[in-house]
Amino acid sequence: MLMKKIKFLIISIFLISCNNSDHTNFIVIFLDDMGYGDLGSYGHPTIKTPNLDKMSIEGQKWTQFYSASSVCTPSRAGLLTGRLPIRNGMIGSENNSSRVLFPDSEFGLPESEITIAEKLKEVGYSSVAIGKWHLGHKKQFLPLNNGFDYYYGIPYSNDMDAIKSGIGCCVGQNYWLQYAQKELNSNNYNVPLLENNDIIERPADQTTITKRYSEKVVEYIRKNKNNKFFIYLAHSLPHIPLYASKDFLGSSKAGLYGDVIEEIDHGVGMILEELKEQNIHENTMIVFTSDNGPWLPFKTHGGSAGVLREGKGTTWEGGQRVPAIFWGAGISPGVISGLGSTLDILPTFIEISGAEKINDRIIDGYSLKKTLIGGESSPRDEMIFYRNREIYAIRKGEYKAHYIIQGAYNYPEKTEKKILEKPLLYNLNNDPSEKFDISKQHPDILDKIELIGLRHKKSVKFKEDLLKYRKKK
Amino acid sequence: MLMKKIKFLIISIFLISCNNSDHTNFIVIFLDDMGYGDLGSYGHPTIKTPNLDKMSIEGQKWTQFYSASSVCTPSRAGLLTGRLPIRNGMIGSENNSSRVLFPDSEFGLPESEITIAEKLKEVGYSSVAIGKWHLGHKKQFLPLNNGFDYYYGIPYSNDMDAIKSGIGCCVGQNYWLQYAQKELNSNNYNVPLLENNDIIERPADQTTITKRYSEKVVEYIRKNKNNKFFIYLAHSLPHIPLYASKDFLGSSKAGLYGDVIEEIDHGVGMILEELKEQNIHENTMIVFTSDNGPWLPFKTHGGSAGVLREGKGTTWEGGQRVPAIFWGAGISPGVISGLGSTLDILPTFIEISGAEKINDRIIDGYSLKKTLIGGESSPRDEMIFYRNREIYAIRKGEYKAHYIIQGAYNYPEKTEKKILEKPLLYNLNNDPSEKFDISKQHPDILDKIELIGLRHKKSVKFKEDLLKYRKKK
Repeated sequence: MLMKKIKFLIISIFLISCNNSDHTNFIVIFLDDMGYGDLGSYGHPTIKTPNLDKMSIEGQKWTQFYSASSVCTPSRAGLLTGRLPIRNGMIGSENNSSRVLFPDSEFGLPESEITIAEKLKEVGYSSVAIGKWHLGHKKQFLPLNNGFDYYYGIPYSNDMDAIKSGIGCCVGQNYWLQYAQKELNSNNYNVPLLENNDIIERPADQTTITKRYSEKVVEYIRKNKNNKFFIYLAHSLPHIPLYASKDFLGSSKAGLYGDVIEEIDHGVGMILEELKEQNIHENTMIVFTSDNGPWLPFKTHGGSAGVLREGKGTTWEGGQRVPAIFWGAGISPGVISGLGSTLDILPTFIEISGAEKINDRIIDGYSLKKTLIGGESSPRDEMIFYRNREIYAIRKGEYKAHYIIQGAYNYPEKTEKKILEKPLLYNLNNDPSEKFDISKQHPDILDKIELIGLRHKKSVKFKEDLLKYRKKK
Repeated sequence: MLMKKIKFLIISIFLISCNNSDHTNFIVIFLDDMGYGDLGSYGHPTIKTPNLDKMSIEGQKWTQFYSASSVCTPSRAGLLTGRLPIRNGMIGSENNSSRVLFPDSEFGLPESEITIAEKLKEVGYSSVAIGKWHLGHKKQFLPLNNGFDYYYGIPYSNDMDAIKSGIGCCVGQNYWLQYAQKELNSNNYNVPLLENNDIIERPADQTTITKRYSEKVVEYIRKNKNNKFFIYLAHSLPHIPLYASKDFLGSSKAGLYGDVIEEIDHGVGMILEELKEQNIHENTMIVFTSDNGPWLPFKTHGGSAGVLREGKGTTWEGGQRVPAIFWGAGISPGVISGLGSTLDILPTFIEISGAEKINDRIIDGYSLKKTLIGGESSPRDEMIFYRNREIYAIRKGEYKAHYIIQGAYNYPEKTEKKILEKPLLYNLNNDPSEKFDISKQHPDILDKIELIGLRHKKSVKFKEDLLKYRKKK
């Protein structure tokens, strides 16, 4: 009799705690310039990220996951469209010129492109973009014209519109001078904060921006618990210049960079808590990742790629391999060392939401649903690494071939570009740091990879670089 | 009424599942040459270590934990005695000569030294040593003469007694030739396997050695569940040459090095299971760590230090900072970024076991009990880095000063020794890769650290190098 009562009790608790909704909400938390080695669960010794660490245990921690590009604008275009940015002009054509959009750029993501928000709208989702956009700051390119119902954030990088030359750049000492001030403020950067299409604050107070983004998301969840929703939270940090709110300034052992990551982790915890509070945590999927690797010329403000070689701007692993944690909504817990990419987010969300597949154009992403939920191997087996409009490297399975190598831009001692007479080849599964060239032992593999590149090139029809159009001064 | 019954039931289950023993058993699992970056929970992308990852969540994952030395013999002497090896002659005096004991060495750990096993015997523990010893292979230096009741393992490194010159060393290609054979065997190394003081197999079959060590530990636990015990499991791998048993050969994505670590992780799982089976998991403390960093000249057979600089043999972080997981016996779960060392294991076990403190000599370790169990800050705030008998570097708090720098031995392009005119200074909390020298900004800190070195030197009385005595050929 007692056992029966206990059984009944347990079943009741179980039913109450389960939400009966049959849809999945999506939250993408997308960091700016956070490196592969910057979270506790990815090996950082002194940055504490308890919420993300817990998510990487409860959900899936992907260890060979790539952003669509090694710099900002193309990476975001790739995530939101599932297409390599070479297919829509959102990638630069010349080194060190307009590799991303700037405040004087004329264009943005072409209207013909289909974003995740636009696809999910077809099946009844409402979508919001919180944070950095960087796909065009003119009205016709902003989130509201790309399927989102609400926008709150900055339109481009937080170091743009600098009031003194050199402070947004690594060469010279201007950058560091602002940190010698007693009180941290972001008035050196005349960056606007937008709500929908309107500027509501300028310069945006970046010291509280991480906190405000997290709060906006929490507020949205609270108000929309009964709706199907997609939240695109694109934090503007830890891109330099770094800022943390008073509660976090000086709180990390790892310095200001640590403070920033720990404040973001805290915000992730707030979001998780709100999902539980509203009892929609069982049917909400969170994807946490970064737009590219760490900006190494900024030293202790630049984060770390951990075991990986190089960082942001390069096609070495440190430039594009990023942490990626998938959590919630039936995901089978585990460490996934198969390949994945931010390009795969759109097809995954399309499949899970039941939206119609995109069939009128090439999509470079794969749906990861069966890996996330069924535990199957990842369908992705290739990755093409562009720097601007040139293919620098290609990964196939465990192998990666490099055709051109080059260090980070704005890194005077390292930027030199080398077109290799013979490609380099690395086995990334046993040599994650790309140290031991094995090209001589595997000419067959090099042939196979070369063919992948040639076939891919043939598939690229759009030839224009839309980043190059900038106001004449 | 129902609630009362449920409460009663829950309390009963809780009491049954708790073991009433009032003592703590100790298991030290000590790897050979495993680097800081070689476990999943420390950031390795393709080596899968689910058992150790789980332990690092359920227990404490220490992220700034140091072995007592960057090479084998001194590191083991430090762990077992809680004293820097400079205090007892178990450290070499010349670069590239006898930095560790060899098969023709005459001496071993002096009898006057007090080991963990000897201290625990005073309070009724029985102790076993399974695995590599490397503190003297002559009878009077073996485990049975150092407080252990049983020994099963190899007396020195698994690459010693090589039958061809060059195969145990990184220069030349001999090492790799043996891996071109179809069937992997360890007959190229005439290493003896001992039980107690007797050779029972020679050459030891190293392909099954990891498996046999784990099985020995499981068997010991089964037979001694009612005793107080200390198990010192010192795996002879992943020191080169690498071997894995048939069940693990080729099973890891990360190649043979990955196979080796995954077989060790599997053995850790077997040990955990047996502890639970015998219901003594609640009062058994496991410490999992490594004797030094990865042996980088061996490339894909050499492991990885992750974000840390350099590896085995050096006094850069990669040489001595190692993974350290503390599990069980009331340990409060968490990530500990305070300092710790293998030197601290003896004092910790002494305090927990209730054995009497050692008062007749200098002990370099600190008891970590209050951190492990109470969650207090680590008592350790300093670390002295020797290479042979010279102080190369000293850490105080977040800062580390380097006085002499040098790459790994047997690494032709890197071994050069540089005595620095002005020390280098790094802040390891925000610069774990030791990239950004800040010595100019902090002369005061350099003074403070210099004083620590001078005081330490005055405390070293034993001046002899016992490793230098080797048979004349």
